[in-house]
Amino acid sequence: MGSQSDWPTMRHAAEILEQLGVAHECRIVSAHRTPKRLVDYAESAKARGLKAVIAGAGGAAHLPGMVASMTLLPVFGVPIESKALSGMDSLLSIVQMPGGVPVGTLAIGKPGAINAALIAASVIAHLDPKVAAALEAFRARQTESVAEIPKDEA
Amino acid sequence: MGSQSDWPTMRHAAEILEQLGVAHECRIVSAHRTPKRLVDYAESAKARGLKAVIAGAGGAAHLPGMVASMTLLPVFGVPIESKALSGMDSLLSIVQMPGGVPVGTLAIGKPGAINAALIAASVIAHLDPKVAAALEAFRARQTESVAEIPKDEA
Amino acid sequence: MGSQSDWPTMRHAAEILEQLGVAHECRIVSAHRTPKRLVDYAESAKARGLKAVIAGAGGAAHLPGMVASMTLLPVFGVPIESKALSGMDSLLSIVQMPGGVPVGTLAIGKPGAINAALIAASVIAHLDPKVAAALEAFRARQTESVAEIPKDEA
Amino acid sequence: MGSQSDWPTMRHAAEILEQLGVAHECRIVSAHRTPKRLVDYAESAKARGLKAVIAGAGGAAHLPGMVASMTLLPVFGVPIESKALSGMDSLLSIVQMPGGVPVGTLAIGKPGAINAALIAASVIAHLDPKVAAALEAFRARQTESVAEIPKDEA
Amino acid sequence: MGSQSDWPTMRHAAEILEQLGVAHECRIVSAHRTPKRLVDYAESAKARGLKAVIAGAGGAAHLPGMVASMTLLPVFGVPIESKALSGMDSLLSIVQMPGGVPVGTLAIGKPGAINAALIAASVIAHLDPKVAAALEAFRARQTESVAEIPKDEA
Amino acid sequence: MGSQSDWPTMRHAAEILEQLGVAHECRIVSAHRTPKRLVDYAESAKARGLKAVIAGAGGAAHLPGMVASMTLLPVFGVPIESKALSGMDSLLSIVQMPGGVPVGTLAIGKPGAINAALIAASVIAHLDPKVAAALEAFRARQTESVAEIPKDEA
Amino acid sequence: MGSQSDWPTMRHAAEILEQLGVAHECRIVSAHRTPKRLVDYAESAKARGLKAVIAGAGGAAHLPGMVASMTLLPVFGVPIESKALSGMDSLLSIVQMPGGVPVGTLAIGKPGAINAALIAASVIAHLDPKVAAALEAFRARQTESVAEIPKDEA
Amino acid sequence: MGSQSDWPTMRHAAEILEQLGVAHECRIVSAHRTPKRLVDYAESAKARGLKAVIAGAGGAAHLPGMVASMTLLPVFGVPIESKALSGMDSLLSIVQMPGGVPVGTLAIGKPGAINAALIAASVIAHLDPKVAAALEAFRARQTESVAEIPKDEA
Repeated sequence: MGSQSDWPTMRHAAEILEQLGVAHECRIVSAHRTPKRLVDYAESAKARGLKAVIAGAGGAAHLPGMVASMTLLPVFGVPIESKALSGMDSLLSIVQMPGGVPVGTLAIGKPGAINAALIAASVIAHLDPKVAAALEAFRARQTESVAEIPKDEA
Repeated sequence: MGSQSDWPTMRHAAEILEQLGVAHECRIVSAHRTPKRLVDYAESAKARGLKAVIAGAGGAAHLPGMVASMTLLPVFGVPIESKALSGMDSLLSIVQMPGGVPVGTLAIGKPGAINAALIAASVIAHLDPKVAAALEAFRARQTESVAEIPKDEA
Repeated sequence: MGSQSDWPTMRHAAEILEQLGVAHECRIVSAHRTPKRLVDYAESAKARGLKAVIAGAGGAAHLPGMVASMTLLPVFGVPIESKALSGMDSLLSIVQMPGGVPVGTLAIGKPGAINAALIAASVIAHLDPKVAAALEAFRARQTESVAEIPKDEA
Repeated sequence: MGSQSDWPTMRHAAEILEQLGVAHECRIVSAHRTPKRLVDYAESAKARGLKAVIAGAGGAAHLPGMVASMTLLPVFGVPIESKALSGMDSLLSIVQMPGGVPVGTLAIGKPGAINAALIAASVIAHLDPKVAAALEAFRARQTESVAEIPKDEA
Repeated sequence: MGSQSDWPTMRHAAEILEQLGVAHECRIVSAHRTPKRLVDYAESAKARGLKAVIAGAGGAAHLPGMVASMTLLPVFGVPIESKALSGMDSLLSIVQMPGGVPVGTLAIGKPGAINAALIAASVIAHLDPKVAAALEAFRARQTESVAEIPKDEA
Repeated sequence: MGSQSDWPTMRHAAEILEQLGVAHECRIVSAHRTPKRLVDYAESAKARGLKAVIAGAGGAAHLPGMVASMTLLPVFGVPIESKALSGMDSLLSIVQMPGGVPVGTLAIGKPGAINAALIAASVIAHLDPKVAAALEAFRARQTESVAEIPKDEA
Repeated sequence: MGSQSDWPTMRHAAEILEQLGVAHECRIVSAHRTPKRLVDYAESAKARGLKAVIAGAGGAAHLPGMVASMTLLPVFGVPIESKALSGMDSLLSIVQMPGGVPVGTLAIGKPGAINAALIAASVIAHLDPKVAAALEAFRARQTESVAEIPKDEA
Repeated sequence: MGSQSDWPTMRHAAEILEQLGVAHECRIVSAHRTPKRLVDYAESAKARGLKAVIAGAGGAAHLPGMVASMTLLPVFGVPIESKALSGMDSLLSIVQMPGGVPVGTLAIGKPGAINAALIAASVIAHLDPKVAAALEAFRARQTESVAEIPKDEA
């Protein structure tokens, strides 16, 4: 993620990966304030054995796209809800990548962080049957948890 | 894709997959006009051996999200440029999924179709070294193709 | 509605139907988390004797359009106010349906829920004179309730 | 509709009603240039035997909402694509009605005109089995018309 | 104004008129809930001696435009800040009038209410030298009230 | 107007004033390229006998608001349709004036130019019965010109 | 800045200039309420020895562009977050200047105020090695301050 | 600039610099396709004697912000008009930088390219009296070139 202030959103991604038993690391890499760290992180990601990268950033959110420019791993972007423009700036800065360098973009804010973890897990499920099984169980529990009738209906 | 009219955009995805040597199929599945076909397609996708789904749709674009609701494969969504609202409706209808059902969304129109193919290939690259090599070569050629000085500079 | 969290908005629809003496049911059917329930609900709606469906959902709101794809009953959509984008995503996801599958869309949030009930009642008023009379009385009371001079005017 | 210039869009509604065998009339009623005609039309609509009103207008589109304020018939609004703002102004002017006076709003432009006819027909289908049958046939033909494989696929 | 809920905004217009010594009246006229009152008010405004009309409304704000359709007096519109869309819907519903029926539109919310009073007063200043003088004094006081250096500057 | 390129829009204002017999002048005054001309024009407008100012500008459109800051005459603003943002930038730059300095804003483009002339004429109608009569005749002709049935209806 | 109410945002610019040892002054100059002060300030800025101007304003924000029209100094604009439209109006009013009169525009709100100070300092760094050194130190501290691992990570 | 396709816009910047006698170079540096070239260019810019950088890019436009993250020179960003979203994505991706790394952003498209050259020249004017004089002459010619009366006025 691009900043400590993104953690309250991005921790939802970490929690889902935890639940699914997907090994992962959480790092702050600011495209703008720590560009060298960005280059190092992105260029070494594949060699270090990562299978996918989740990048969350807000405003003029350059982190996901810049990581994608320096690795061939699948990169998933989470637009953080920004103060003035509610994340519309973050969304467009992440999703509107030019042809050639893809970022799979999720929804603004918490739902996007959750879904970045789930889609990353679906990639890893091709490589690890335990993750595949955990994902199936997660989806099944989710379906079961939806009540048919709203609570408090008069 | 949701309609024959999406093909001029989505064929760019097919062309990239072709270039990268990724086996694929092109199908029209309209969430709204052929809902049964949608259910059949999405529910059988994994069992039929697909490793990822690319879904392009425009306007109130429900195809990517509905496919994602019925499969655990990674689903990549391409917002087709719409007539009145230039694809902003397509983008929001695809990307703003609720937590629990992810769609990795790419840019509006042709760049998004190209990038959907590339990110799908990056998933398959984990399973097939030939695709991984093709992807690396594609990226290298792309980098080399960028001239340093604009043509026609006076 | 698509989720328990939509109920504080959608209960306003239920209250209006109650006031007008229109028999109705309140169900949670998530297009994304319970796609089978969605298919069952939409496909059986007409045979079960429903005369119209009101569907409320937020974000990438697919419920109204997917119900409309599987029934010929009039479907009325209520865009729920979403966190980041204030319901603009919900609105566009519901209203921008392709030609062939209509969703009559109401305003974002509570006014939309009230109005979904009123327009559904206006459909049923063609079949049930008591509902027609109740609707006329409702409209008359509403007109009378508008004061001519603002309260607290100095 | 509000103006002769809306006819190229609204004629698609008339054509669908024609196909479905729904008796109808096409009138120009400008909320702004012919306000008396608006009042006469809206107030007499129900007594003249109309079962639903389709109203298309663009820009600061007041026709659908003003008709709805003077009749209890279901009113369906079609936002006409406007020159500068592509119909976003038309859409918001029609859909964002206050609680108490509903307008079931369809998509901007031609798809909205088609769908206004279809949803109006679905109301009338409750009263006329021939319309109900025509609607079912229309939907079935529509589903059948969707090819599975895009034309011109290489 | 269209509703009691618009009064906290529109009272700022009344206060400015009061300060400038402009005779005025404050009325609630809902385009949608009291369409007859709207017709009566707008059609009689000129004969009753009004010189300008200030109309404030929110959401699908039809009041200013409908008043303008039924009088030749200058009509000034104030977009009330709406809940979901912050008054962008109100603004577009008021300002995007078709050629032929003008509404002079002011800013969203309180600044717009203040300015509607000021521009109406500038119209009346052509007819009443006392209002012209009051307006000049108001403007001069306003200019003088702007401090040169921000308070609390360290 | 702010530029020669605004003339194809603003000439519609001149044509309406011509039709109504309202004496007027057409000047190019660029807020940004000719700021001294702006100051001279705005400060002398009232003394020169003008009764209202119509100001059209596009993009970061500062002309209407800056004129309003230097005169107490009613100022009417016309947002010119801009290239990239279709006049949304022009509209917000003109209409969102702070409380204290009003600009009565009309629609984007040609309808706004027409309506600026009509609302300015409605101000002058208070001072000149011939303009009042011309305005009534214009409105009556406009109402009569609206056909009841769309041409080319099959 | 255009108003005392902009000071809570603009003081962040002053604080950064203070930190960097850049001499500066803080003035309120309202384009709309004090147009003469605007002309005096902008026309004399260069002669008084200023090397750059930072102008913050909100809504129909004309201050930055009008200053730029009357000086050849670099002008940097800060869009203040506005009440209804969150600063989107301020941003477009400042950034969409016509070719010929530039305003270097920063982000909406506090980040924009900080960055206006930094970019102004980068201009002055060409003239003053102490400012250049202060800027380098600021950037280095900023880079160092970014933790690698989010606090509170479980 | 980020791509050959940006040249038709960015050449306007080059032409203005040419006119003003400002030495400059035109380079294509794609943040996404040539990230190493980006790092090399940005890190060496100051040492190579550049005094300012103009960076134009479209869509998810990361070039200006990434250059700014790796140099302390003033960076001016030009949002290129994009296909689907008309440059609104480019604008937000460039202007909404976080506090700490400034990009002075100009208007979308050609006016922005012209103004980037002018504001860069205003920086260099502090260092080079010939550029200062050229800038004054340019501004004076510009003011003189504005006709007072629109051509073709009837």
